[in-house]
Amino acid sequence: MANCKVTLYPMDKEIEIPIGTSLKKAMDLAGLDFDFPCGGRGRCGKCRLQIREGSVPPSDADYNHLDDEEIQAGFRLACAVKVQEDLVVELPLADTGGHKILVDAAMKEIEIKPHLSKTYREVPRPSIEDQQSDWDRLRDALGSDNVCRISLSALQALPGVLRENKFCCTAVVSGNEVVGMEAGDTTERMLGMAFDIGTTTVVGYLMDLLTGKELGVASSMNPQTKYGADVISRITYVGQEAGGLERLQSAIIEVINRLIEDAVHDAGYVREDVYAVSVVGNSCMHHLFLGLNPKHIALAPYVPVTGSPQDVDAHTLGIHINPAGKVYVLPNIAGFVGADTVGVILATEMDQSSEIRLAIDIGTNGEMVLGTRDRLLACSTAAGPAFEGAQISCGMRGTKGAVDSVQLGEDIVYTTIGGEKPKGICGSGLIDAIAVMLAAGIIDHRGRILSGDQLSGTRAERFASRVVENEGMTSFLLAAAEETVHGRPLFITQRDVRELQLAKGAIAAGVEILLEKYGIMPEDVFEVILAGAFGNYLDKHSACAIGLIPSSLEDRVKPVGNAAGTGAKVALLSAGEYRRAAHITSFVEYEELAAYPKFTEIFSKALYFPRVEQHV
Amino acid sequence: MANCKVTLYPMDKEIEIPIGTSLKKAMDLAGLDFDFPCGGRGRCGKCRLQIREGSVPPSDADYNHLDDEEIQAGFRLACAVKVQEDLVVELPLADTGGHKILVDAAMKEIEIKPHLSKTYREVPRPSIEDQQSDWDRLRDALGSDNVCRISLSALQALPGVLRENKFCCTAVVSGNEVVGMEAGDTTERMLGMAFDIGTTTVVGYLMDLLTGKELGVASSMNPQTKYGADVISRITYVGQEAGGLERLQSAIIEVINRLIEDAVHDAGYVREDVYAVSVVGNSCMHHLFLGLNPKHIALAPYVPVTGSPQDVDAHTLGIHINPAGKVYVLPNIAGFVGADTVGVILATEMDQSSEIRLAIDIGTNGEMVLGTRDRLLACSTAAGPAFEGAQISCGMRGTKGAVDSVQLGEDIVYTTIGGEKPKGICGSGLIDAIAVMLAAGIIDHRGRILSGDQLSGTRAERFASRVVENEGMTSFLLAAAEETVHGRPLFITQRDVRELQLAKGAIAAGVEILLEKYGIMPEDVFEVILAGAFGNYLDKHSACAIGLIPSSLEDRVKPVGNAAGTGAKVALLSAGEYRRAAHITSFVEYEELAAYPKFTEIFSKALYFPRVEQHV
Repeated sequence: MANCKVTLYPMDKEIEIPIGTSLKKAMDLAGLDFDFPCGGRGRCGKCRLQIREGSVPPSDADYNHLDDEEIQAGFRLACAVKVQEDLVVELPLADTGGHKILVDAAMKEIEIKPHLSKTYREVPRPSIEDQQSDWDRLRDALGSDNVCRISLSALQALPGVLRENKFCCTAVVSGNEVVGMEAGDTTERMLGMAFDIGTTTVVGYLMDLLTGKELGVASSMNPQTKYGADVISRITYVGQEAGGLERLQSAIIEVINRLIEDAVHDAGYVREDVYAVSVVGNSCMHHLFLGLNPKHIALAPYVPVTGSPQDVDAHTLGIHINPAGKVYVLPNIAGFVGADTVGVILATEMDQSSEIRLAIDIGTNGEMVLGTRDRLLACSTAAGPAFEGAQISCGMRGTKGAVDSVQLGEDIVYTTIGGEKPKGICGSGLIDAIAVMLAAGIIDHRGRILSGDQLSGTRAERFASRVVENEGMTSFLLAAAEETVHGRPLFITQRDVRELQLAKGAIAAGVEILLEKYGIMPEDVFEVILAGAFGNYLDKHSACAIGLIPSSLEDRVKPVGNAAGTGAKVALLSAGEYRRAAHITSFVEYEELAAYPKFTEIFSKALYFPRVEQHV
Repeated sequence: MANCKVTLYPMDKEIEIPIGTSLKKAMDLAGLDFDFPCGGRGRCGKCRLQIREGSVPPSDADYNHLDDEEIQAGFRLACAVKVQEDLVVELPLADTGGHKILVDAAMKEIEIKPHLSKTYREVPRPSIEDQQSDWDRLRDALGSDNVCRISLSALQALPGVLRENKFCCTAVVSGNEVVGMEAGDTTERMLGMAFDIGTTTVVGYLMDLLTGKELGVASSMNPQTKYGADVISRITYVGQEAGGLERLQSAIIEVINRLIEDAVHDAGYVREDVYAVSVVGNSCMHHLFLGLNPKHIALAPYVPVTGSPQDVDAHTLGIHINPAGKVYVLPNIAGFVGADTVGVILATEMDQSSEIRLAIDIGTNGEMVLGTRDRLLACSTAAGPAFEGAQISCGMRGTKGAVDSVQLGEDIVYTTIGGEKPKGICGSGLIDAIAVMLAAGIIDHRGRILSGDQLSGTRAERFASRVVENEGMTSFLLAAAEETVHGRPLFITQRDVRELQLAKGAIAAGVEILLEKYGIMPEDVFEVILAGAFGNYLDKHSACAIGLIPSSLEDRVKPVGNAAGTGAKVALLSAGEYRRAAHITSFVEYEELAAYPKFTEIFSKALYFPRVEQHV
């Protein structure tokens, strides 16, 4: 029998087939993944393509589904074409999957390929001649050897769904399993929600899983704070209170359900439109979310229960989304380097870079990652709560009225969040203030606030009147009583300086040890990535001035915002990126600072501030 | 470097390795699946083998775990052996898995390979130098690339289980997933239960999943009977009563839980020792068990929801066994040829036979399968309840006091179950009685009971006095009032004969159509397998005499008891056999008798009895 040649665009594939072969068969043989929703029976009209060269007489199906103009222009339904001569055919671009989007302004492009997919089918109806079961006929209609299982709940829904809309239905598929069934064509609607569970706040991003578009954000305080402000106190609570783990888990699940409800409501959807949830958080938040006892994170040798990604059915966790919904929890690297850090690496692609990058996520714990695609080192240091304004005499969180930046002019100039009268000082303001005091010579490099007497006759003499005794300590008056909202003055006390030294010393020591283990000098670092909200507000000059970041890297500091949250979005939108997360945790080498021989020595030195050149 | 040769028995494998290679490495390279529970660290002493040729100096580990006699005899721990010269080594036979057992007296040998496996490991403890997470270290200790997932519940149990018994633990594995965690070595204990859910009775077999031994049987009435005696009335109940499906499902789950509890209690176990449950039943029982709406089984074109095996977590169904437990539900072939028939095929291996076999499972529905490994045909006929004693004037189930066999001597001779005074007549007794009446000439081949007048002067004259009018019908007196337990006579009425004709006609028509479709004569059938309890009690001569089974096959009839139940056991003990079940359902061709053009004609003829040679 004579052969014809079919050339398929835009993929530019050629295939030879015997005359009379159907175009559908030819496309199968060419290995194309082209969708025939009705199984190629000319019913749905969705397999249209354009014949660019060669002649194909229109079929009945073409007349039913295409208008005259389209037929004139060479459009045909692929399923009805029998190839009689050489053809050149133009296929439409697939309208879902495979396209790239920019996840975040500062971030990377990824290919959207969510964990779950939806497939619409017009399933052939049963008859006395074709008594196949509902599931077997659906599986055949799906036409993929891969899909070979169906969950019990989908199976229970199946007979009703098929008969609700003339055997037209949409299957929700996860891996090789049908996990949900919906009547009619619902392929256009599939949302997900990416969560960053912080010790203090929880943020959820509502995402369209088909386009990658962000549809909304919802956030809330982490309700677990009432059982303990920090990770260690929550772990203690779990260890001491019967039912403590269940209580903390319920609290976080409850707020996640509320955030989902809020986000879908605001965006005009319902929670059944949400099929996937991804989660990042530090190791403790990760454990509490999954109901894993975090006890051993806090006890030497500080091991988490798992360092692998965990997929869970949403209903198992009590998360109220679509009944077919799944939850994808990113893996931890170590007891104090959690899935949030994995999110940062995913988002910044440090693991794929040939340039040496240093990522720092500053919080109560500072997590740091250093390296390239060839080697990544991570560590965690207990920075304490100073950067969050806690345990600082006039400290407060970065909300309205907080002094958030301090500059040195003729006098001390500060700004507040919202431009209001100052109420207290937040982390970024504190770092600025200390940097200014250092620059002005009010604090020496050991962290001592010089007394008014000591300042007289120095270049800092003009600030001598601001140094006063307060609560028995030498203190620096940042704002006088008449300037503040509550009529009380704002001081930076000697103890505040010591707290900050402990915090910055911990981070700086971590950075120094990572550099030493890696065998490089600070100057070898191409970029310093500051992750987290705090990194965004931090003044990089001040950060270098107090020695938080090596001063030689000041120009290479790049704040990236909530990179952990971006990592959660990436893992939600792309199953491949989620799998990459598993690779990242096994690839990253974790350095336990407590076990590092020179840690105490390096930490002690890091408590000092850099010496200031005396040019003020 | 010089090489040595290691020969490994009993598998008779040879491998060349460099001098100094560990024997463990050599065995890995040879592709042996030898178990090193402690990971090859000389701790557990379980990797012992015997050096038959060549010299291996004993190691410290050998002295710790073996006695002098054993060391003298050449026993060594494989993990401590460094190969220094050519060796011949004898490995012990694995003590679990891979051995064959006879499942049932009449049945086949299968290789025991349950769905779940248990692996004992001494997991290396974490330290500051080795901070791997609990799960990652367990996965490494399991040492199989295959096992890459862990269920959330197993993960939640993991940290506690590891630390309960010095990191010695047993992992329960299903496929590539750890589904359960147990402290210490529990590998010796793994039970399962195989269920045959009948419309009227439920039977469960408690099986040892490691040895294949049957440890007990528990049975009960199916509590769904109170919602409808037969399949159709239960389907009607589901359709008409709100919550009907849930009620019927709960009823069967409840009795299954009770049977499990009874069986494990009697055998000295607890229900947590049960890890797997397998289930067969007709399509309706199958659907009700899984909570699938059976509605469409009863409506043309009679399609079930699924024709594939379904695996479900036990807790999802509310079945109370080990938290890691799974339920394996065998597939249906068609709406009226259920998983019980698949069980019969599995048990009898009809699908692997080169001889043509005919299997008949007689109940309210008669299911029949005909063929060989090259082709199997199945059908179902509505036999009605006559064979179960229902709708027969003096009918009863096959319990104490039922007339279960009738013979023709000088007079009519009958026996009863338990040898008691007769109370009624059960299916096998009825078939015998009709066969006797036919042989004696009391009934003609159309099924008419001749009147006393008509009998006088014939060879059946001696029975003329037994033919009386009863309830307005010609009836045959089987037992006089003074013989029975209740003082009422036992009759076989004209209507009883008609009922039996309908039932036997349905079966006979099914057999005839299968033979016709297959294109063979009755004589071509090598064996007639009678499955089910009824088949065991049925007298094969009588069955042929009334035309239930072609008389030419009388000598080839083989009752096999509860073959469906045996199929459930086979599928429980062997994951491979369970997978075979899926193949069987796609392989068997289902013949819808209602759609068979000549059905009415064949059925009408099949209502008649065979003509009797007049030699009595």
